[in-house]
Formats: sequence, C-alpha cells, structure tokens
Amino acid sequence: MFDYGQSDSNVITSDRVNGTAVYGLDDRHVGTIDHLVIDKQSGKIGYAVMSFGGFLGLGEEYYPIPWNKLRYDTRLGGYRTDITEEQLRGAPARRDDWYRDRAYEERLHGHYGAPAYWV
Amino acid sequence: MFDYGQSDSNVITSDRVNGTAVYGLDDRHVGTIDHLVIDKQSGKIGYAVMSFGGFLGLGEEYYPIPWNKLRYDTRLGGYRTDITEEQLRGAPARRDDWYRDRAYEERLHGHYGAPAYWV
Repeated sequence: MFDYGQSDSNVITSDRVNGTAVYGLDDRHVGTIDHLVIDKQSGKIGYAVMSFGGFLGLGEEYYPIPWNKLRYDTRLGGYRTDITEEQLRGAPARRDDWYRDRAYEERLHGHYGAPAYWV
Repeated sequence: MFDYGQSDSNVITSDRVNGTAVYGLDDRHVGTIDHLVIDKQSGKIGYAVMSFGGFLGLGEEYYPIPWNKLRYDTRLGGYRTDITEEQLRGAPARRDDWYRDRAYEERLHGHYGAPAYWV
C-alpha cells in the first residue's frame, strides 16, 4: 500500500502510533502510547492512553492524557509532554467508563491545563 | 484495561477504527477504513485511507479520503460519507508519497469540497 516513510515524515498512521515513545521536558523517556481515543462525532483525537510502565513507580498502569498535551518532536522521533510526575500522581480518580463522563473529562483537562477537545 | 463499550459509545479507539465500515448516503456499504493518517504537528486526523474492495469496479484499491468527509452514524454503527462514485473515479492522480505533497492535498480537498485539515 503506502510507504509512509521514516520518522522524518510529517504524518503517522493510526496503526503505527501505538507503541510510540513519549518523552518529558528533560528528554527522558517517560512512557508509551498504547492507543488513541477518538471522539466519534467530531472526529477529533481526545486522548492518548499511555502506559507508564512502572517508570514513575506507578506500576504498569494506563492513564488517559489529553491529546493536546503531546507534541511530536521529529528530533526525538516521538512525542514530548510537559506533564510532570506530580501532575500524573495527582490526576483525578476515574471510573471505568471515564470516557463517557464529561464531568471527569472536565476535571482531567482542568488538572492538566489542557483545552477541551469537545468544544 | 478499558472496556470502551459497544457501538453506542461516543468514542472509538485507534486500534478499532481500522476495519470500520463506511456507508454512502443511500445506506449502502461502500468501503472500509483501513487506517487513519494523522498529522504529527497538529495532532489532527487528516485522512481515512479506505479500501473500496472492488465495490465500485475499482479493484482492491486504497484511496485517501479527507477525514472530515466522514461522519459517524450511531444507527449504522459506522461512518457515512456523501462522496459519490463519480467523485471517487475523478479524484486527482497521486504520487506514492502523496501525504507529503501539499499541492496534491489541496487538489484532493478541493475535489471533494472538504476544508483543509492543516489550516
């Protein structure tokens, strides 16, 4: 099919984004994107659900991170975030069906200082 | 991890969108989403690359379709598009690396009457 080239490409495909590394402001590898959560109606990406692999002493846990808190960095070949360990530890508790709980989504975006994707 | 529920959920995950059915205005199944193409810098979905599976006599071919030409339809449990067979047949020719050819992207979006995702 299409060869989307290497890491210098300006696009990434949905099947390749899973497993992409995420780095902190200090270039440290902090976690990995497990999958993206897409809002069906607007067609916008809402979240990257990230695995932090015990790096922060949080165990192999998955956390939804507002997509606009990640920026692709061509030099690193992955995403960069300014989210800190403290922010991650202090994230609001979530229900199993957090993705359909707008009040939780508002708390989460407020916590990370991220603009809402659904506006 | 997370159970995103069934087709009544308001979100879909990147690993599930592949293989999602696409219907025409007359509810006919016209094709299938093979993968999404995401603009790294803006984080926006640019295209659904669709397979039309010979349905339109086009052979098993893959076509990039501007993402904003698809709307999720909860009743159908898939995406709906108003793109016609004539539009698809008349789509501008593309290079192998069409996804890094802004002039082609402009022609394609103009052809389908779709607003540019990169603005």
